[in-house]
Amino acid sequence: MTEPQAPSERTRLKRYHWLAAYDRATIDAIIDTALVCQIGYVVDGAPIVTPTCHWRIGDYVYWHGSSASRMLRNQEAGVPVCFSVTHLDGVAFSRAAFDHNILYRSVMAFGTTELVAGEEKKAALEAFVTRLAPGLWDYARPPTEQEWKASKVIRMKLDEVSAKVAAGLPEEDEADMALDLWAGHVPVRMVTGDPVADPKLRPGIERPGFVSAFRL
Amino acid sequence: MTEPQAPSERTRLKRYHWLAAYDRATIDAIIDTALVCQIGYVVDGAPIVTPTCHWRIGDYVYWHGSSASRMLRNQEAGVPVCFSVTHLDGVAFSRAAFDHNILYRSVMAFGTTELVAGEEKKAALEAFVTRLAPGLWDYARPPTEQEWKASKVIRMKLDEVSAKVAAGLPEEDEADMALDLWAGHVPVRMVTGDPVADPKLRPGIERPGFVSAFRL
Repeated sequence: MTEPQAPSERTRLKRYHWLAAYDRATIDAIIDTALVCQIGYVVDGAPIVTPTCHWRIGDYVYWHGSSASRMLRNQEAGVPVCFSVTHLDGVAFSRAAFDHNILYRSVMAFGTTELVAGEEKKAALEAFVTRLAPGLWDYARPPTEQEWKASKVIRMKLDEVSAKVAAGLPEEDEADMALDLWAGHVPVRMVTGDPVADPKLRPGIERPGFVSAFRL
Repeated sequence: MTEPQAPSERTRLKRYHWLAAYDRATIDAIIDTALVCQIGYVVDGAPIVTPTCHWRIGDYVYWHGSSASRMLRNQEAGVPVCFSVTHLDGVAFSRAAFDHNILYRSVMAFGTTELVAGEEKKAALEAFVTRLAPGLWDYARPPTEQEWKASKVIRMKLDEVSAKVAAGLPEEDEADMALDLWAGHVPVRMVTGDPVADPKLRPGIERPGFVSAFRL
């Protein structure tokens, strides 16, 4: 089998390189099924990692926040960032103490931030609300001019990006496989519970279908 | 109510500061119920965020990996890092399009890495295996000298650390509260499925109780 090709040296997986994936279908699926990413950036030489909601439009990942946010003010100038998404899928129990591991899917992308402004910002924020729940944008009270101004959107191109998918059990030595010890995995996953109405909900208001249909 | 005190300026929450918690009981609970964290560090001026398993012993968070890992070789010298853990607890549906938000618990800690060596390394790795599942350390095939050597452990003191807990719905304007629109939230949580045996499991081997009892 040909080794998959990384888009750049720093995105090439060195350790456990057989878990690497560089194809956009795999990468996009990992990004799109996560609601929260971690953004790494540097301030005064020190690393900062901030969790935030993200969404993807084509070749870009987006995130947003208040116009007053220090992170976004730092990033609107165009700074190097690392975008990271991780899904935990299970815990692998091996025969050898040091072969225990986790099952996961992760994406790491390096890039430079861009400020998204004007009509493009409006389209991006609408896309985010629709990604949360199709139908929500038309249902909710639309943003005022002041709210549009108070929101900032940042994006980053998915150029230098790699995925890592650990779906099975770690390989074990033949000698370990012969031991009278159990091995396997426990799957874990995110589930959505029943919707909970706001205690201050006015009487007689029906729950919209997109809330009942919401799944992560 | 007195504002809770942050341990340092950069851990003090500026935005949504009413969600901040600086007490160690809250912080420890968020750290201890997560299996995977994100470590931010800087290489050649650029940020890198790496997901990895972590565990806590007292005032320190630990992570580990292969002795050949570039990340760990970079960190054994003592470098500034940002430790980040996030639990997604739900999605809040508000009346106004821009008041949608997520329910979450997160921890952010700034610190400097330390290499953990010798007997302390052994104790730390045993603690990690036991944190995965109590009883697992005594059950599994113990590490060989070569395996001990091939594992590196890094830790970081929890000095500059803060938590952020968004447990309820975002506040909405009174005018929005009066609209004929639904508001509430959809809870999400991690669940563990039934254990799946290794297809190569030798016949007649019983599943240990700590696997059946495993919960995230």
